[in-house]
Amino acid sequence: MEPAKIKDPARVALGAKLWFDPRLSRSGFISCNSCHNLSMGGSDNLKTSIGDKWNKGLLNSPTVLNSSLNFVQFWDGRAKDLQEQAHGPIANPIEMAFTHDLAVDTVKSIPEYRAEFRKVFPSGKLTMNEITLTIAAFEETLVTPNARFDKWLKGNKTAIDAQELRGYQLFKSSGCVACHNGPNLGGGSFQKMGLIEPYKTKNPSEGRAGVTGKDADRFSFKVPTLRNVALTYPYFHDGEAATLTEAVDVMGRLQLGRKFTAEENADIVAFLHTLTGDQPRLMLPILPPSNDKTPKPRPFE
Amino acid sequence: MEPAKIKDPARVALGAKLWFDPRLSRSGFISCNSCHNLSMGGSDNLKTSIGDKWNKGLLNSPTVLNSSLNFVQFWDGRAKDLQEQAHGPIANPIEMAFTHDLAVDTVKSIPEYRAEFRKVFPSGKLTMNEITLTIAAFEETLVTPNARFDKWLKGNKTAIDAQELRGYQLFKSSGCVACHNGPNLGGGSFQKMGLIEPYKTKNPSEGRAGVTGKDADRFSFKVPTLRNVALTYPYFHDGEAATLTEAVDVMGRLQLGRKFTAEENADIVAFLHTLTGDQPRLMLPILPPSNDKTPKPRPFE
Repeated sequence: MEPAKIKDPARVALGAKLWFDPRLSRSGFISCNSCHNLSMGGSDNLKTSIGDKWNKGLLNSPTVLNSSLNFVQFWDGRAKDLQEQAHGPIANPIEMAFTHDLAVDTVKSIPEYRAEFRKVFPSGKLTMNEITLTIAAFEETLVTPNARFDKWLKGNKTAIDAQELRGYQLFKSSGCVACHNGPNLGGGSFQKMGLIEPYKTKNPSEGRAGVTGKDADRFSFKVPTLRNVALTYPYFHDGEAATLTEAVDVMGRLQLGRKFTAEENADIVAFLHTLTGDQPRLMLPILPPSNDKTPKPRPFE
Repeated sequence: MEPAKIKDPARVALGAKLWFDPRLSRSGFISCNSCHNLSMGGSDNLKTSIGDKWNKGLLNSPTVLNSSLNFVQFWDGRAKDLQEQAHGPIANPIEMAFTHDLAVDTVKSIPEYRAEFRKVFPSGKLTMNEITLTIAAFEETLVTPNARFDKWLKGNKTAIDAQELRGYQLFKSSGCVACHNGPNLGGGSFQKMGLIEPYKTKNPSEGRAGVTGKDADRFSFKVPTLRNVALTYPYFHDGEAATLTEAVDVMGRLQLGRKFTAEENADIVAFLHTLTGDQPRLMLPILPPSNDKTPKPRPFE
């Protein structure tokens, strides 16, 4: 995995501001970063997220880190790319609970934002299309190179230790790698949660079937990336696995039909810790202030 | 106003992490920065803040910027300094809703935090006292030098324009400066809100009287700083003044017995815009991860 090549720094800088701007939510309190916190592995480390009016989210917030490497976005793959994904939470009534029209009105009301958009989009257009293009451009920079496993792959034989190497070998030989593969160690396919044994959960999500309407897609979810997995607890679409130990155990039994011994489990968990890469180092953006034309936040109405 | 002199960079860096760490709240979702957002003038730009379980705060969140220059902390002055202040929100049931014991347990459970505390406090103690000492040390760095008004005071005669200068002269001659004075243009005394005419509000707060029990202190509040006031809308302890125009009008009538003309009001508002200083430029901290011993967030219990 290589550091992101930034093609258009002005677009990325504008996207970074919008990423941290809670005025894209009805309350004026929730930003993209609230649930995909870049101080915390690009996630919120909650089972399911907190949304507008403290609504409880339906699914565990996936990390934004390396999300550009995923073949589709959301657990159920309903967005084809990051730009399409970015439309969702802003207007979701249990997430940011805004409307796209009000989000555009908010950004357009602020002269500093208008000027930045004019520089990035010489067409002068400022719609949800341009807003989400900048957010996606920022997200594309959120890659985490230099994980110890990457260094080992590049030939640094001391980058991982003997236990971690045993874990990697078991990760391959036991079949984890069948789904968690490619540059993102996952994010490349849908798979049924509960392949060998059914997964027991109170979470009502049926995953991919909600998009396709096909019975065969019930409980099928996008395989999550394992990069930075030591930071993105808790695990699974319902957030019900609190620790990597628990997640590895459940995956072994339900997906591979294999009960890992305590030692095997510990070896795989040790390997998973080698997947933590360099976290994005960002300046906290200073946001341009609202004015009389900016729609007012409505947290308590 | 001068940039902050950082005496102990390790203490400040640790305080910055805790400032951004939502694990100091019961939900795992609310950090100091949620209501004192350093992207937004150190405030949340809401009338009153959103707390745990979407509780509605009682008062407008004061800016953290330059708060070290205030003679006491909170609107009612119930904390003598920033360290004492930092104890409050963590355990306030409508703010972060945690307990001090759990906050300490959370920090202590994380080896990276323990190591940092050992470096900063060779005594090895890690209690709320040390936690709040680091947060206060970070807050002390959040000063905003180089406002255009500061440059003008230092002799740069072109730093403010003719209208802004008229506004400053009126600010002095009409009496605003009687309370908004000193290095923070405020923050140095308690004053009654509604001196000449009573202030009409549905907000039940009685201000300083809640601390002293004295009838004479009813509706008396700490005079807020005017530094960065163009960024810290909405205004007053109840957040009911949406704009500077409105705030100046109310202050003139209620505190000074003077109805400013539209031109006078605009001049003062222009002057107030010269008080925006350099905003703190911070790297977003990367927080050390939780582990099995870290108390779990409880957002929905």
